[in-house]
Amino acid sequence: MTICIVTSNKNKASEVAEFFRGITGIEFVPMECPEYRSSSIEEIARKKAEYAYQVLERPLIADDTGFFIRALSGFPGPYAAYVLDTIGNAGILQLMEDKEDRHGQFITVIAYADRDQVRTFSGTLDGDIVSPRGSNGFGYDPIFSVNSRTLAELTIQEKSRISHRGKALAAFRSWYEHEQMN
Amino acid sequence: MTICIVTSNKNKASEVAEFFRGITGIEFVPMECPEYRSSSIEEIARKKAEYAYQVLERPLIADDTGFFIRALSGFPGPYAAYVLDTIGNAGILQLMEDKEDRHGQFITVIAYADRDQVRTFSGTLDGDIVSPRGSNGFGYDPIFSVNSRTLAELTIQEKSRISHRGKALAAFRSWYEHEQMN
Repeated sequence: MTICIVTSNKNKASEVAEFFRGITGIEFVPMECPEYRSSSIEEIARKKAEYAYQVLERPLIADDTGFFIRALSGFPGPYAAYVLDTIGNAGILQLMEDKEDRHGQFITVIAYADRDQVRTFSGTLDGDIVSPRGSNGFGYDPIFSVNSRTLAELTIQEKSRISHRGKALAAFRSWYEHEQMN
Repeated sequence: MTICIVTSNKNKASEVAEFFRGITGIEFVPMECPEYRSSSIEEIARKKAEYAYQVLERPLIADDTGFFIRALSGFPGPYAAYVLDTIGNAGILQLMEDKEDRHGQFITVIAYADRDQVRTFSGTLDGDIVSPRGSNGFGYDPIFSVNSRTLAELTIQEKSRISHRGKALAAFRSWYEHEQMN
């Protein structure tokens, strides 16, 4: 069986492709889903998957990711993509200049939809906001450090093993493989 | 006839009440509408009104407001409320520390829905980002200056006359009064 991956982001798509290599057929469907303003990543991912299923009527996954910085009361939260496009990493670092607490957390929720159900799977990654280092990855990767390396200093394979998205995909894959056996 | 004002914000509600005093009956309906992530304030307001009409089935207005700072590529844009709740005015001023261009623009869109239609009315207000002054108003009012006074230095009546929300309400009122006569 093939699962559709609904996304408008090519970088995400290549991470997902890597993850499912040899496990199941996947097909990318570029689609702009309407996105809710909500502080719940789980709710946003679920609504995207519900919307996409209405359009495609085929098993699919959609996802949403938030980035929550503790010293900034959770900002940029669910608006991580918009904030990156406007004030960017430079803006985040400016807001963090006077902050001692450097903690940030990524959350990814994968929502799977088929004819019978919508299920969600989440993964988190804790780290610190630091000055930019490294040239791999995208988005906030250069300013987000886990065990003293930024995500932009990891290979895509290393990042997939530890990342919020990797963990959410692993949770989904484990459930999915079990379902396929029954 | 009575129009429902759909809002989850009491401060907005009192501004609107002031505006319609003696013109039409109004009724406040506190309701949390699902909110889309979109860079278009017009689209967000329209979807809120459509949603609220499905629930209430009575003539109503809903609105949405964005705050676009030019030097920050439009940030915080449609996420003005979320940004206020997290990094607040202090965060905005921190991001603006090294910026010469101080221009900001508020946009409010009022969406009116009844059995036959959804119509939108917009108003804008241009000004400059400044250090906080004044104690009236709410939200970004203390750091937003128009003709050398911040919105927090104006009375609610003065603010209604010049504000984005006042202009959008005036555009709506003018259309609405005309419709009632026909």
